[in-house]
Amino acid sequence: MNEALTGLAARVQTHLDQRLAPFGDDLVAQAMRYAASGGKRVRAFLVVESAKLHDVTEAHAIWPACGIEAMHAYSLVHDDMPCMDDDALRRGQPTVHVKWDEATATLAGDALQSLAFELTLHPEGAETAQARADLGLRLARAAGGQGMVLGQSLDIAAESAETPLSLEEITHLQAGKTGALIEWSATAGAVMAGASTDALSIYAQALGLAFQIQDDIIDVTGDAAEVGKAVGKDEAAGKATFVSLLGLDGAKYRASSLVDQACDALSVYGNDADMLQLLARFVISRQK
Amino acid sequence: MNEALTGLAARVQTHLDQRLAPFGDDLVAQAMRYAASGGKRVRAFLVVESAKLHDVTEAHAIWPACGIEAMHAYSLVHDDMPCMDDDALRRGQPTVHVKWDEATATLAGDALQSLAFELTLHPEGAETAQARADLGLRLARAAGGQGMVLGQSLDIAAESAETPLSLEEITHLQAGKTGALIEWSATAGAVMAGASTDALSIYAQALGLAFQIQDDIIDVTGDAAEVGKAVGKDEAAGKATFVSLLGLDGAKYRASSLVDQACDALSVYGNDADMLQLLARFVISRQK
Repeated sequence: MNEALTGLAARVQTHLDQRLAPFGDDLVAQAMRYAASGGKRVRAFLVVESAKLHDVTEAHAIWPACGIEAMHAYSLVHDDMPCMDDDALRRGQPTVHVKWDEATATLAGDALQSLAFELTLHPEGAETAQARADLGLRLARAAGGQGMVLGQSLDIAAESAETPLSLEEITHLQAGKTGALIEWSATAGAVMAGASTDALSIYAQALGLAFQIQDDIIDVTGDAAEVGKAVGKDEAAGKATFVSLLGLDGAKYRASSLVDQACDALSVYGNDADMLQLLARFVISRQK
Repeated sequence: MNEALTGLAARVQTHLDQRLAPFGDDLVAQAMRYAASGGKRVRAFLVVESAKLHDVTEAHAIWPACGIEAMHAYSLVHDDMPCMDDDALRRGQPTVHVKWDEATATLAGDALQSLAFELTLHPEGAETAQARADLGLRLARAAGGQGMVLGQSLDIAAESAETPLSLEEITHLQAGKTGALIEWSATAGAVMAGASTDALSIYAQALGLAFQIQDDIIDVTGDAAEVGKAVGKDEAAGKATFVSLLGLDGAKYRASSLVDQACDALSVYGNDADMLQLLARFVISRQK
């Protein structure tokens, strides 16, 4: 599993580097390259593996896979900015606004969002125009004001709210903030093939929530040096998290149940979905 | 001309209001509505008129027309922020970060960019998936790090440069900052119909440059109350503009010549292109 993830991560990096080469040496282009480097590439893996399930080769799937990684990278650059989460460290490196400045971070994030659509809609990606247009439309909805941005907005509002969020509210928040891009990624293969996204949607919704619960667990149990970013921030700020609401053991149990649900949803694919099942197990075993 | 522009602006506003209604009452949704209101809607007009030239009705063209207006609105929200141009007034109203805060402005801009793609790729827009995917791909390129964002980045770099930009450099900057979205808009009709974009591209490149020259002229000759935003900023900052490089009369003459070139390029369309020719004349006669 780790090998498969590492291998794909290297191929994603190569593809992104090639796509970003023509952007030149402008500051914003440098910051885009920096922000689009590293990371586990879980979203790209979901795209490529769901594509395989539908007989779409990696040569096609690498385009939307890199598209979703560009989208994820943009969201991190903007979320780290002083007016948002104000983080100085990401993946063990200075964040973009620290390394350059806020203007560069704003613009690099903006351009990475555009790049996400450029790669997703590229004619060498999904074979039919119908699939490309559909992927792009779904991406816009997943990323926007009813998806990821809504989740981030609810998250910021929660910081100044008088009462911590309930379990229902935090689940809704995370469905936008983390869940929407995870679901887009895991259903991308079916969309590329023009097939039903039902089974992959159920898998992705459970996986997305488990992913966020594990993030909350790492925020409590992890070590900043190993994780590569600040930890313990939510607890210090008195923010509700899955751990504060369910307890550490309760959160671990819930994440594990969700992974079981996620894996069950893939039974229609039989052994072909082994990698996606392994990924779900990996998500709740990771320590960063 | 003014009537046609005002009429379309009202229909664009209605359509955008309908599309934004499901976004609810979250702060970011409120800020999106605020930022997407008002303006001359020149870009939408270019989409709808170029569509008519290719027998694409407004019922279809209104989708990408609203898409490009959402993209333009996002760019203004982010450009006005303190780390960028730091403007407090836009269209006579407080800018988004002044009325709300920087986090809301960042997120509203981000979500407006996503909305631009959602509307452009909407199945009720261009009739074929091929045209929708093509429009979306071109939009991503026009908006991103080789288009509009590059222009904005060069503009910010110019502020701290030791020597003012040359005419060639400022023309390159503006081709990204203003020109790329203008060209996307004016060619959208041909793309929707799967036709050649050649004539409309030539028209748009000349028009985009004339548009920016007129902006520079207004910055020198205009009155803040009438224009609805700060004026004289470029001159005060010692930045090169078309007026500082060509003189006021030289800039006017250049803009007028460009409009002639733009209109000439439309001759292949005969009288059907009257409105686009009128628009070009309007662009250099406007005072705000």
